[in-house]
Formats: sequence, structure tokens, C-alpha cells
Amino acid sequence: MVVFKPRGLVPPVFTPLNDDLTVNYAAITPYAEYLAVNGIKAVLVGGTTGEHMSLSVSERKKVIEEWVKVGSKNGLHIMAQVGGAPMADVLELAKFCASSKVDSLLTLPELYFKPKSVTELVNYVELVAKAAPNLPVLYYHIPSMTKVEINMPAFVAEASDRIPNFMGIKFTSNDLSEGAQVLRTLKNGQEMFLGADTLLAPAALLGIKSSIGTSFNLFPKLAQSILDAITKDDVDKANKLQERLSLAIEAHLPEGDWLPIMKAGMEITTGLNMGPPALPQRPISSEAKKRIISRLKASGIA
Amino acid sequence: MVVFKPRGLVPPVFTPLNDDLTVNYAAITPYAEYLAVNGIKAVLVGGTTGEHMSLSVSERKKVIEEWVKVGSKNGLHIMAQVGGAPMADVLELAKFCASSKVDSLLTLPELYFKPKSVTELVNYVELVAKAAPNLPVLYYHIPSMTKVEINMPAFVAEASDRIPNFMGIKFTSNDLSEGAQVLRTLKNGQEMFLGADTLLAPAALLGIKSSIGTSFNLFPKLAQSILDAITKDDVDKANKLQERLSLAIEAHLPEGDWLPIMKAGMEITTGLNMGPPALPQRPISSEAKKRIISRLKASGIA
Amino acid sequence: MVVFKPRGLVPPVFTPLNDDLTVNYAAITPYAEYLAVNGIKAVLVGGTTGEHMSLSVSERKKVIEEWVKVGSKNGLHIMAQVGGAPMADVLELAKFCASSKVDSLLTLPELYFKPKSVTELVNYVELVAKAAPNLPVLYYHIPSMTKVEINMPAFVAEASDRIPNFMGIKFTSNDLSEGAQVLRTLKNGQEMFLGADTLLAPAALLGIKSSIGTSFNLFPKLAQSILDAITKDDVDKANKLQERLSLAIEAHLPEGDWLPIMKAGMEITTGLNMGPPALPQRPISSEAKKRIISRLKASGIA
Amino acid sequence: MVVFKPRGLVPPVFTPLNDDLTVNYAAITPYAEYLAVNGIKAVLVGGTTGEHMSLSVSERKKVIEEWVKVGSKNGLHIMAQVGGAPMADVLELAKFCASSKVDSLLTLPELYFKPKSVTELVNYVELVAKAAPNLPVLYYHIPSMTKVEINMPAFVAEASDRIPNFMGIKFTSNDLSEGAQVLRTLKNGQEMFLGADTLLAPAALLGIKSSIGTSFNLFPKLAQSILDAITKDDVDKANKLQERLSLAIEAHLPEGDWLPIMKAGMEITTGLNMGPPALPQRPISSEAKKRIISRLKASGIA
Repeated sequence: MVVFKPRGLVPPVFTPLNDDLTVNYAAITPYAEYLAVNGIKAVLVGGTTGEHMSLSVSERKKVIEEWVKVGSKNGLHIMAQVGGAPMADVLELAKFCASSKVDSLLTLPELYFKPKSVTELVNYVELVAKAAPNLPVLYYHIPSMTKVEINMPAFVAEASDRIPNFMGIKFTSNDLSEGAQVLRTLKNGQEMFLGADTLLAPAALLGIKSSIGTSFNLFPKLAQSILDAITKDDVDKANKLQERLSLAIEAHLPEGDWLPIMKAGMEITTGLNMGPPALPQRPISSEAKKRIISRLKASGIA
Repeated sequence: MVVFKPRGLVPPVFTPLNDDLTVNYAAITPYAEYLAVNGIKAVLVGGTTGEHMSLSVSERKKVIEEWVKVGSKNGLHIMAQVGGAPMADVLELAKFCASSKVDSLLTLPELYFKPKSVTELVNYVELVAKAAPNLPVLYYHIPSMTKVEINMPAFVAEASDRIPNFMGIKFTSNDLSEGAQVLRTLKNGQEMFLGADTLLAPAALLGIKSSIGTSFNLFPKLAQSILDAITKDDVDKANKLQERLSLAIEAHLPEGDWLPIMKAGMEITTGLNMGPPALPQRPISSEAKKRIISRLKASGIA
Repeated sequence: MVVFKPRGLVPPVFTPLNDDLTVNYAAITPYAEYLAVNGIKAVLVGGTTGEHMSLSVSERKKVIEEWVKVGSKNGLHIMAQVGGAPMADVLELAKFCASSKVDSLLTLPELYFKPKSVTELVNYVELVAKAAPNLPVLYYHIPSMTKVEINMPAFVAEASDRIPNFMGIKFTSNDLSEGAQVLRTLKNGQEMFLGADTLLAPAALLGIKSSIGTSFNLFPKLAQSILDAITKDDVDKANKLQERLSLAIEAHLPEGDWLPIMKAGMEITTGLNMGPPALPQRPISSEAKKRIISRLKASGIA
Repeated sequence: MVVFKPRGLVPPVFTPLNDDLTVNYAAITPYAEYLAVNGIKAVLVGGTTGEHMSLSVSERKKVIEEWVKVGSKNGLHIMAQVGGAPMADVLELAKFCASSKVDSLLTLPELYFKPKSVTELVNYVELVAKAAPNLPVLYYHIPSMTKVEINMPAFVAEASDRIPNFMGIKFTSNDLSEGAQVLRTLKNGQEMFLGADTLLAPAALLGIKSSIGTSFNLFPKLAQSILDAITKDDVDKANKLQERLSLAIEAHLPEGDWLPIMKAGMEITTGLNMGPPALPQRPISSEAKKRIISRLKASGIA
């Protein structure tokens, strides 16, 4: 039986690039150490933050391998996202992960021949899950990017019935009402990871205590302190800490798309240089970085 | 200077109808007494729950007048929703309210020649606000019905600058991240009312402690107890009570559209018969009512 | 049995306003004479061009009455659009038309409690049709404004089965593939009016030879000449004339929303002053008018 | 200077599969011969019909190579669609085509990090065009699949300014009004291919005489006869032939998604077996095939 253990805060890791847009594999070791030192126990490789939907299959495999290697040294669970490519490649990646030391899989839905019903989406995830039957498989719900807008409680119910190694979802949506319904639908051992960094505290109140969020790369301790405040029943503190994290994120938002601003913000906040985004995304300007720094200072964060 | 006082839970009242679809004015008095006895201090007349976007101007005026009359006897603040009709009628209703004992106004956006920018929406609300310059005016954001999808923090900022009697918004959306941004944008004395009954607890954690929600008609004390638990820093209790309210609402959802199921639910839960919906909406079947009752019982609510 | 006769080009008439935004009833007579002189046999009163979804019921009735009066003197069939208001008002307007000399009805769908299925939309149109059982009733499909996106071939099939006086639709969409399917679904005596002035020629080739289009107010003879070219099998001429009409329309488009630019264009092209739009719409600037004139001249139209 | 010659009807070719879902390369030769015999002078390899957004890069290359080989024997221009995969793969495919005997390129937009403005889309197409600077490059507009909804006339204007080898678009939309605007925006030597088989005749009337449509695989001569009727100014014949083609297509539509029904229809109509769809799409049932045959017979087509 497949068991899936990670709980709590899981950063989706950036893929560090060199200035010539090749992958900067050497940067992964210090990055992993930084995360481990800051209390992180599991990472997602190849999500939206990792830009694997811009990379070739061979690059994706090498990045995953590198994380498996440095992850084992740092006690990190490695969840790999295999979707965001033609089905043939998604299945190849799933098989690759199944035969490597990857700990769990996450998959986007089909991006072109999009599923139009719960059953069509379960069909897709089932194909991926059968290609890696020994691994826990989770579904990556992010309708803002995929435009696949399927009812998640209904999907989770049918996927749980049909797919033995289906272990949960990453729920990247601000709709905590639907999120709470998903939580009530999950079976024992399955997990839901919120993907909405500005809603950590209110989600935790509803019992959603696991999250995959880009900002955990930048502010791992602040994010953890929000969950801790909820555990300690300190509503006011949870609210204040959440506001601090939200303002930190909002300091970046006016300057561009999510990944380029967060990749810039990672260097601003941690000093770890992640390099430019992979094509077709583009880096933000140095003026934009300065404006982010000003806003962070104005909010008392930087 | 216009002052706006209501805070906390505000039920949007149903418009009771007779079986021949005429308004059942006589039912308003006992309804208002029931709400007052249950701790309610303010009501919204003419919202989605009140179906005023289905009624004629003369019916709307009579319903508002009746609520003003029984409201004063029961200590109820009367907020009247004047939108959802041709602009000529919206302005006439706003003027009518300004010269009656209505306490505050709420307005939907234009439903046909929809605003496409923040400024166009502020223009509209400004026209309504100028027709009732002595009253606090709030904007009714409910994009699921209106398909007017304007950024609310930006709207609130511009409306606050341009409209002296602009006092806040009813935010009918499950996106608490945007809601928290609105809250940070509001000025002193303005208020934001959440319109998302399944998110009372998480919203309260974020400081959003006022709400306008249909279910407060059915479960006023349960809803209040959720806010109380947050005030007392009892996260677990807030979560459990919220789940109870959410399950009560979810017991109705499979049976049809929001207003018909809630009008049926009102009789099921309180015994107060609100009659059928106004055309073009239709009542749910007696079988549907039975299924709602079964689900409420299964969840330990009825 | 209800019979519906109009075919060909039907202008949706503007509602002339005075500068104080009251209706300029006196302008209707010369307007109707201008249309009749230019070969027009039927008009639509109260459509998007007529802005009746901004007016009160009493104004709408007076405008309809005036058109009935001057229409009878000018041999004009009067089709009145009764939708775009609360259901109570829509039904009152339908009854009013049924007892006046209006020749046919058109109705928008419900704008707030929007139909979500073919059957719900047929239910709505049936209510309107039963309020005017002696009149031909047509449905006004304009999803760009209403956001009611129901499959029209399926709607027409069910409406024809259930509503004895259902006589067709105004199809305001650029999707001629769906339009051709509607045409194949219509029964004998029913008619489809295209609402896409830049597609008169290609639609006519597909057999869609009736249209309701704002630009027929400005360019009635040019529009008719397009249909005539198709009748004469002169493809090249039809294309050239259509391009002329399309360029005339495109000369207006950059300057604002449809009604304000067309109301301005009416005066530019015909000298008939329609006044400003009704609230909440606003007139375009005099600079915008000059740019329209320049573009019309550049295209050899003005 | 890059020159792009194909005009008229261009079938987007199916990718024949074996029952085990491997590519059936052997089926390409007789398929190409069938097309050539039926008057086809150019084909699109790797479009939606070709399902290359489901295949791996190596499969795509082999399929393209095979078409280049058999194409040269049959006088076929080979246009290859390289989009629908991670950017790294798209660029690799573009370079592969540039160094092989492919005649022209078509590219989808980015499917995940979707462009949100005209300039972002031009940036993407420019990257692809620079990877194959010796080849004509066209953009594949198909918003129903990609959800990339950018104004095409504005895109064509900017792309033509910035990209020397930008030679046109495949416009897969039923909006012939926007299509006619694109046509007016194109420069000498560029071409627009309609992707709307049910609108061949009305588009041709507007001067849009090139098309890429799945149904040209099934009915190449019928499709050509529609264009011929327009050339001969025979409006009535063009309409009748278009209706025949449209009814043939509509006979398939109720049975599933576009590619599975068309792949089934190809065998029904031509006897050429294209095999099942690539994953994640699934074949239609044999009952569905029988219903298609019945409808084709009822319309007098099969």
C-alpha cells in the first residue's frame, strides 16, 4: 500500500538558471541546505515555481535527479511534478520517477485537449498514476493557469474510488469554501495542500494545515509562525503574521508575473540568486526590483 | 457628514410572497420580530435574497416602507438595495429612500451596459450616491450574478476619493485574499460585509467581522456563535461551528438555485413561510424539501 | 394563428434624448420619416440601440406609443423589445404591447437570475409570450451583453415546440456557423434576424437575409445594396460593399462603447441629432467625433 | 527573403496510429497519395488534427520527416506545427525543421505561462521565428483550445513589424468579422488560413480563400467545389454545397470531441484507417460510428 507522509509547509522549489538560460545545477545544493536549515522537510520539484512546463524532458529528469541526491542528504521528501507537457512525456516522466528515488508525484491536467468533466480528469490522472503505481500521486489544481475548471470535491471523490495510489491534491485557488469541501471529502492518509500564501491563517483555522507556496522559499519561518499561532489559538497573532506575509507578497505583485517577481524576490530576501526565468518568461527590470525593495521596507519587512 | 453604524451579522431579508405571487406584506411584522428576538440589529431589504431585481418599482417601495415601519418598532437598521433595474428606476429608488426613513443604501452595478473599468463603476455608484446624498451608500459586489468583475481594492480606493457618502461594500465572493486587501483599503468609518456564509470564521480571523448572509435568517444564533468563538480565540470551536453552518447550507445546495432552496430552507428551519420565489424563479419540489430535511438530520442539525 | 411578416433590414431605432436627458419625443416623427424615405419597412423599438434597459417603464411605454403612432403613418411594422428589466416590468410591458398597436415583441433573457439551461430560458420566454399571446414573440440573443450563453439551435427547437407564438430570434453574434444551424432549425413562418452588421454579405450567402443592425440607421441604402448584390449573384460587389460598410463601422469603434459612438455617428452621417445617451452611458467627446469623421473621410465614406 | 506560397485548401493531416498507440508510419504513404490524387498541394503536419501536442519530440520529428519524404514524391508543401509543448521543445522542433526539408512553420502560443498582451504573444512567436529564420512562420490562433484570447488584427500588425519571416496566421475561429479585419491587416505575401470548415463559402465571399480544415481530409473535392462556386459567382450553389459539407460535419458532432470523431469519420468516408487517437484522447464507440453513418445517409452524403 502506498503511504504519503508530508504535512505542513512544502516550498515549490525554483529551478536556478545561469544567465545563458542553462540550468544551474550547482546552485541546488546550497539552496537545499538553506531550506533544510530553515526547517523545511519536503519540497515540490517542477511546479509552476520550478518552471518545468518550460523545460525539456531531459532537463526535467536531471533537475529531479539532482534534487533526489541533495534531498537525501538534507532529509527532504522529494515530490516531483510531471505534468505540463505532451502526454507521452508526462508518462515517461512518471515512469522515470517511479524507478528513481522520488518520493511522490504531482500532476497537472492535460493542457491542450482539456478535460471537460470529472470523469475525463480522473481518466487522465489515472493514466499518470498507473505509470508510477508505487508512488503516491496527487493532482495539481491551478485553474488560473490551466483553465481546467472542474469541481474538486467531486473529482477527489471519484479519483479516490478509482485510483489506488491517489493521495490528494494541491489546491491552488483562493476559494476556501471549495477547499473546505475538498478537505471533508478526503480519506484517511490523503492530504490537501493549499496553494494560496495569503490565506495560510484562515485556511489553517478550517483545518487546512498543509500548503505548497512559493513564498515559503523566501519566508519559511514567517510562514511557519502563522501555523504555530493557529495551533496556539492566538487568532490576533495569526492575523498579524498573515498580514505581514501578505504585504510582503503584495510588495512584489505590481511588478509582473508570478514567477519572474518571485525569482527576483528570492534573491532580494535570501541572497540566493536563482537567475532569470526560463523562456518564454522574462526577468523583471532592476528598477522593478528597487520598487519591490522600497515596498518591503515601507512595510517593515526588508 | 454621513455616518454608517451597522457592524456584525446582517440578514438580507426574504420578500414573503403569497401563493398568487403578490407580496405578503402581513408576513413582514412577525418576520422582523423573529429576527430582533434572535439578536439581529440590522437587515438588508431588496438584495438577492429579497429578489427586488424581480419586482416593480412600486412593489419595491412598498416593501421598503413596510420594513422601515416594522424596523423602527424592532430597533432594526434598514439598509435598502436599490440596484438591479434600469438606471432611471435605480435613481428613483435612491431618491425615494433618501426621503424616507431608510438608514443606508446598497447598490448593484449596471446589469446591461456593464462597467468595464474601475472608473466606469465609480461613475455609476456616484450617480446613485448623489441621488441620496444624506445616506451612507455601499456597493454590492456579486460577480457570480452580475458578471461585473472589477478589482475591488482599486474600486474602493477610487470610490472613497470621489464619493463623500461612500461607506463600504458587500463583498459576495469566496476570495478572502481580495477581501483582506479591501479591508486594508477601507478608511475609518467604512465597512466591508462579507457575503460568504461558509467562510464566516476564516474571514473573522482576517478581521472581516461583518457579514450579510442569507443563512443568518435560518441560523442567526449559530452564525453569531462563530464570531464569538473567534473573539474568544477558540480556533477549534470556530472551525467546528463553521463546519456545522457549512454543512447546513450544503444540505440545501444540490436542490436548486440559491434563493429557491433558501426560501424553502427558511420554512424548514424556522417555520416562517416565505412563500414561493418571485418569477422567473420557481419553487423547489416537496421531494427536494424532504431530501434537504434528511440531510440536515444526517448532519445532526435538524 | 399568429403571423409574423417582417423580412430584410430592420433598424433598431435610437431613443432621441434632450440635453437634460428627457426623451425627445418630437424627434421621433422626422426620424421615422427619414427611415421610411430610405426604404425601411419595420423598426425595432427598445433594443440595445434604443437603450430601453436604461429607461423607466412609463418612459418605455410612451416611446413605444409614439413609434406606433408615427409608424402607422409611415407604413412601419413596430417590433418592441420588452426585456432588460425586472420580470414584473417585462410582463407589464408585454401586456401593454399586446393591448396596443405594437406588431411584434422581442425579449431579452433575465439579466440577474440568469437561465442556465435551454429549458430555463424557454420557461422565461414562455412567460413573456403568454403575456402577449396575440403577438409574434422573438428572443433576443446577445450574449456579449447578457452573458447568457445558451445553445441557440437547441433553444429554438424547444421554444418552437412549447410556445405557439414564438416566431424567431435576433441573433447578435458573429458566429455564422451557429447562425446557419439556427436557420436550419427554424420552422416555416419563423425568422432569424442577424445582429452583426459587418457580416451582412456572408450571412446572406448562407440564406440569412434578415438583419437588425444599428448601422442601418446610418447607412440604410448601403446595407440594402449588399443584400441586392447577393441576390444578383455578384460576389465581388457584395464583398466590396460589405467592406465599405465595415470600414464605416470600424471608423467609430476606437472611440468608445457601441451606443455612444453610434449615436454620435448618426448625427455625423445623417444630420439627425439623437442627443446624448441615457444614463449610465455617456456621450463621446467632440474630439472623438472629429476622429470618426477623419476616418470616414480617409475611407472615402464621408 | 522568405517566400510563402501555399494558397487554398490545406488539410491538417491525421497522425495514423497502430492499435498499441505507436505511430503507424507505414500508413503515411498511401494517405499522402490519396490527398495528392484529390488535388491537395499542401498539408499541415502536427496540428490539432495531427495530435502532436500529445506526442514526444522524437515522435514528432519522425512524423515530420516521413511527411517530408512522401511529400516530396507527391508534390506536397509541408507545413509543420511546432507548438504545444514546453518552450525548450518548441525551439528544438523549430530548429529541426529549419535544417530539414520542411517548407513552413506554424506555432501555437505558450500553453501554460499564457501571453496576456499582443506584445507578449509577439515575443513568443519571435522566439520561434528566430529559431527557423529561413522558414516562413505562421501563428496558430485557436482560442477554443488554448484560451489565449488576443486581438488578432493587432497581433498581426505588430508581428509583421517585428518578425521578418512572419507570414500569416491560421485563424481557427468562427468570427469572420475579426477574420476580415485580419485580412485587411495582412501585408503582401502573407496569408490567412481559416480554420472553420462550416464557413468556407461565407469566408471566401469576404476574400478569405485559404483554409486549413480537418474535413478536407474527408471531403477534399466537396470543399474545393465550394470555393469554385464562389469564384464562378454562383451564390446559391456555394450555399448548397456549404450546407452539404456542414451537415456532413454536424453528423459527427454529437458523438464526442473533434479529433476522435474526425478520426472515425476519416475511415467511414475514405476507408483509410487512422487508428485510435493518441492518449489522453479516446476512440469513439462502434455504436457512435453507426450513428454517424446513419446521419450521413439521412443527409444523402454517405
